[in-house]
Amino acid sequence: MKDTMPFAIELEVRDYELDIQGIVNNAVYFHYLEYARQRFLQSLGFKFTRLHQEGIDPVVVRVELDYLSPLQSGDRFQITVRPDVKGRLRLLFYQEIFKIPCQTPVLRGLITATCLVQGRPHIPPLIYEAFREASKKYD
Amino acid sequence: MKDTMPFAIELEVRDYELDIQGIVNNAVYFHYLEYARQRFLQSLGFKFTRLHQEGIDPVVVRVELDYLSPLQSGDRFQITVRPDVKGRLRLLFYQEIFKIPCQTPVLRGLITATCLVQGRPHIPPLIYEAFREASKKYD
Amino acid sequence: MKDTMPFAIELEVRDYELDIQGIVNNAVYFHYLEYARQRFLQSLGFKFTRLHQEGIDPVVVRVELDYLSPLQSGDRFQITVRPDVKGRLRLLFYQEIFKIPCQTPVLRGLITATCLVQGRPHIPPLIYEAFREASKKYD
Amino acid sequence: MKDTMPFAIELEVRDYELDIQGIVNNAVYFHYLEYARQRFLQSLGFKFTRLHQEGIDPVVVRVELDYLSPLQSGDRFQITVRPDVKGRLRLLFYQEIFKIPCQTPVLRGLITATCLVQGRPHIPPLIYEAFREASKKYD
Repeated sequence: MKDTMPFAIELEVRDYELDIQGIVNNAVYFHYLEYARQRFLQSLGFKFTRLHQEGIDPVVVRVELDYLSPLQSGDRFQITVRPDVKGRLRLLFYQEIFKIPCQTPVLRGLITATCLVQGRPHIPPLIYEAFREASKKYD
Repeated sequence: MKDTMPFAIELEVRDYELDIQGIVNNAVYFHYLEYARQRFLQSLGFKFTRLHQEGIDPVVVRVELDYLSPLQSGDRFQITVRPDVKGRLRLLFYQEIFKIPCQTPVLRGLITATCLVQGRPHIPPLIYEAFREASKKYD
Repeated sequence: MKDTMPFAIELEVRDYELDIQGIVNNAVYFHYLEYARQRFLQSLGFKFTRLHQEGIDPVVVRVELDYLSPLQSGDRFQITVRPDVKGRLRLLFYQEIFKIPCQTPVLRGLITATCLVQGRPHIPPLIYEAFREASKKYD
Repeated sequence: MKDTMPFAIELEVRDYELDIQGIVNNAVYFHYLEYARQRFLQSLGFKFTRLHQEGIDPVVVRVELDYLSPLQSGDRFQITVRPDVKGRLRLLFYQEIFKIPCQTPVLRGLITATCLVQGRPHIPPLIYEAFREASKKYD
């Protein structure tokens, strides 16, 4: 039987992330999503900083985000990651943000990434296989 | 005869915007695009901060970005804005980033926004008309 | 008997906070310290956002920081707050950052703040007294 | 005769730098100051990113800032840098921010830095001498 839950982390809004409208600034969601992907990669045994030292740089090539409702001061929220692969050169991250405990949807996104090795797109087999496995687990 | 040039501003990468890979962090492009939209709105006579005080909050509802090549330390670049409207409730911003002077494409995006007035989507006629006019000018 | 422990929160470095040197960017420590002060104020029953709505704006007037050693990817750390008052118009925050569990000192600082009420420095009695009480508790 | 003007750059507030109080967030001034130091170093022929590749990492060891008045949406401002040296291991940056054209003082600071070479404090002679020369020029 499959585990049907996505990978998820929980965070809380920090007041310095608010803009003049009193809501979390649009660019900050990018950081939230990136941090969840970092933690997801760690759960697979990979670290951005170590990969970088080894000459493997994961890079985002496309972002699609739907902003559904804003986060405000003090809100707690969950960020989910559902991974997938597309061809040999694309890693997909389906990501969502929900307020907790009320589960109000905040944002839904699809982030497409690849890896650069010596400046050229290439996903090392170890990463590719880990992703394929994870895509089955977090289906 | 139409002016076929988009609205554009020029900026330069600041080192604090670089991440550990030595390239501009993904979230920072969002700030670049937002700042170009702010300046574009100013060119139409609107200010975010004044609109907010009047109870009109422009909000982003959807973002699509293609990252084409990274910006690095010292790069100068141009950010363009081509506005459009979609129905009565959507303002569209087609935006691009190019390195200068080489014109290397860095990023291409479509940002969809609306306005919230007393918490409900509504684009005040003054803003809507200014956008429609601008969409013809920067076609 | 006094509680000799300062107020403290625990956080973890997020990779987007690193700069090109692979260490946390100097400005980010500001955000860490600010967030710890926000949480400290909450522990006293105050919220920045609510104070702002009531026309009371806490503002920093002076910062002194000694950077002792850098935080890196994956580091967990503790931020402490020891409050004090100085005259009728100054709130003091003695703050420190330590790596955990090793207790390596990362940063030591003194942040001096006041409140602006209708544009003029004034610390409402409720805040002042809460601070004085807290300064005894976290001596 | 000495040039009694400090090194200076001019910037403009971007709306994403504002916080919920409608003023530039405290941490952002740090970025402004850092960017002015980056440009100052460039004027001496040094680049952070190139120094980093050569194993020389300038690091801030102490910061003292006095916040005098806040910057708001649309403000233009000047950031100055007056360099000095202290002993063989300290580079000093006296920095100020003024609104333009009104010259209202916004912030005054002293940033103390050193360089790390293979993890140990050491200021390469080329940098040290350039600083000493500059300290005479921008006295």
